[in-house]
Amino acid sequence: MNRQWVLDHYPEGPATEACWRLTEAPVPEPGPGQILVRLRWLSMDPYMRGRIAPGANYAAGVAPGEVMQGGGVGQVVKSNHPDWAEGDLAEAMGMGWQEHAVLSPDAPGAARVNRVPEGVPEQATLSWLGMPGLTAWIGLTEIGCPKPGETVVISAASGAVGQVAGQIARAMGARPVAIAGSDDKLAHCRAIGYAAGVNHRSATLAEDLRAACPEGVDVFFDNTGGAIHDTVLAQLATHARVIVCGRIAVVDKPADQDIGLRASSRLIVTRARVQGLIVFDWWHKREAAMASLARLWRDGKLQYREDVLEGFENAPAAFLRMMSGRNFGKQLVRL
Amino acid sequence: MNRQWVLDHYPEGPATEACWRLTEAPVPEPGPGQILVRLRWLSMDPYMRGRIAPGANYAAGVAPGEVMQGGGVGQVVKSNHPDWAEGDLAEAMGMGWQEHAVLSPDAPGAARVNRVPEGVPEQATLSWLGMPGLTAWIGLTEIGCPKPGETVVISAASGAVGQVAGQIARAMGARPVAIAGSDDKLAHCRAIGYAAGVNHRSATLAEDLRAACPEGVDVFFDNTGGAIHDTVLAQLATHARVIVCGRIAVVDKPADQDIGLRASSRLIVTRARVQGLIVFDWWHKREAAMASLARLWRDGKLQYREDVLEGFENAPAAFLRMMSGRNFGKQLVRL
Repeated sequence: MNRQWVLDHYPEGPATEACWRLTEAPVPEPGPGQILVRLRWLSMDPYMRGRIAPGANYAAGVAPGEVMQGGGVGQVVKSNHPDWAEGDLAEAMGMGWQEHAVLSPDAPGAARVNRVPEGVPEQATLSWLGMPGLTAWIGLTEIGCPKPGETVVISAASGAVGQVAGQIARAMGARPVAIAGSDDKLAHCRAIGYAAGVNHRSATLAEDLRAACPEGVDVFFDNTGGAIHDTVLAQLATHARVIVCGRIAVVDKPADQDIGLRASSRLIVTRARVQGLIVFDWWHKREAAMASLARLWRDGKLQYREDVLEGFENAPAAFLRMMSGRNFGKQLVRL
Repeated sequence: MNRQWVLDHYPEGPATEACWRLTEAPVPEPGPGQILVRLRWLSMDPYMRGRIAPGANYAAGVAPGEVMQGGGVGQVVKSNHPDWAEGDLAEAMGMGWQEHAVLSPDAPGAARVNRVPEGVPEQATLSWLGMPGLTAWIGLTEIGCPKPGETVVISAASGAVGQVAGQIARAMGARPVAIAGSDDKLAHCRAIGYAAGVNHRSATLAEDLRAACPEGVDVFFDNTGGAIHDTVLAQLATHARVIVCGRIAVVDKPADQDIGLRASSRLIVTRARVQGLIVFDWWHKREAAMASLARLWRDGKLQYREDVLEGFENAPAAFLRMMSGRNFGKQLVRL
């Protein structure tokens, strides 16, 4: 049988474990050109919160009764595709929260099935060598474009995207400054190359940030939104660039509660540029970016911390752990 | 004697006439390389509100006791500069609210003194052939970059910048949609080439805007900020561009009262780009832009409405008229 986590109902406010229910279905048969994989890893990513919201989003969501969406790594157990054989390791955005998945390797764009490359941990294709790594790469190299010596502030700095972003910023000659929610996370950020860090739970966050960024913030890689966003915006340098990548701090709130200081005044005074990022727009750059990230890793310039929960039954718990910031590093589930 | 309006005190909340006081000083003598001009026109522009706020801004402000800053057109009455003669007409940002001004024609950048060209109304150098026209030109050609057929929404659409922006958008093949505060203003916008218009005082502004922009807003030229900004942001199309040019709707409020819906969610979903514009950054493009605007005007593709108050003593009244939106077209004072 194939165990699956299906969406029971849309969350109202913060998601809870009751939003999903565990069900069973027969293991499916792959059709012509398809493969059947047994899941080995599930990836927990903040974008998945948007997929269980009833409102319109940039991608189709999960309806109640459907299998929860999510990326993962699996091993081929049956192949009707000439390029894939039993035992091959596959990474795909379209795995879903289930023990077995049928995939179409030739699907276009972000639905494509990717081969796990040799010489890296297989689950790296879900983190620094996958979608979060590409997000960090595109955000900095296409939107933020830090110049050597500039200050780059990254929120959720020890998270799946933030860890990579900090090290890319450093590789670009910039000065990465971490925002994270605990002193342990900040110590990790310093250990992997951040120049400084501030704790967003500090009562003196604005002053701490000013001390860490005495010449202001040239690039802000925003993974959280909310009050952290407001604090950094107030300290933008002239001609700053802001990458709006995530809003995990407020994504569980109804849209009409995401209220704060409007940005116009700061944007006019600083002539800053703010741009929303959805990495799937840049999927055509995936292979080139992954090659660059793999080179950084081989050169010892990319370190990465994971937070692994064991067992398929823990998928909802892992998701909620990430949503609340209790994870420390990229949140994964190992099946 | 030289009558001058000096700042009496910084406004707290909305500016009032009491913020300035009328004084007299001897008519000054131009030094070497300088000219003395007698003012003929004063320009009233929203940026001037920022110059009488005590907080830091992108340019130095006016301290209490100093002559109010502002642009204008004047006639040379004494020249110590080889290129300027008595009777020449000069336009400059640095005139100030006074009947006579001493200027340094060779000053760099935005402080430069410009000759009023032949064949246009002299006060056009304060509006469509001057700083507001350049603002509209740069905002659309360098930041908004509308493509033919795209929808361009412009707030304060009948104002100094908005009138020009609408006609540039049309000249670029886009579809300009006006937001203004009265039906008279909207009728004027339609007459000069806007494709549609909505009244921001309507109780059904969001629905009206949706009807006027059925495919969403590709470019938003924001001159007002505030609730109008929020309404348009909620209707951005994918990959929209937002030019944050002004915030006259909220500029009289303390910064911590400019509160509203944060933009992150809309920016991520639409991957929109938002950029603050201060036209002085683009002063090196001034002559080329002015030549293009003059060509549009000669070709009959640029119409422009002015709102003229007579008499130097009415400078504060004219400024407050513009701040409140009671003006209809570019606000000027004729001396």
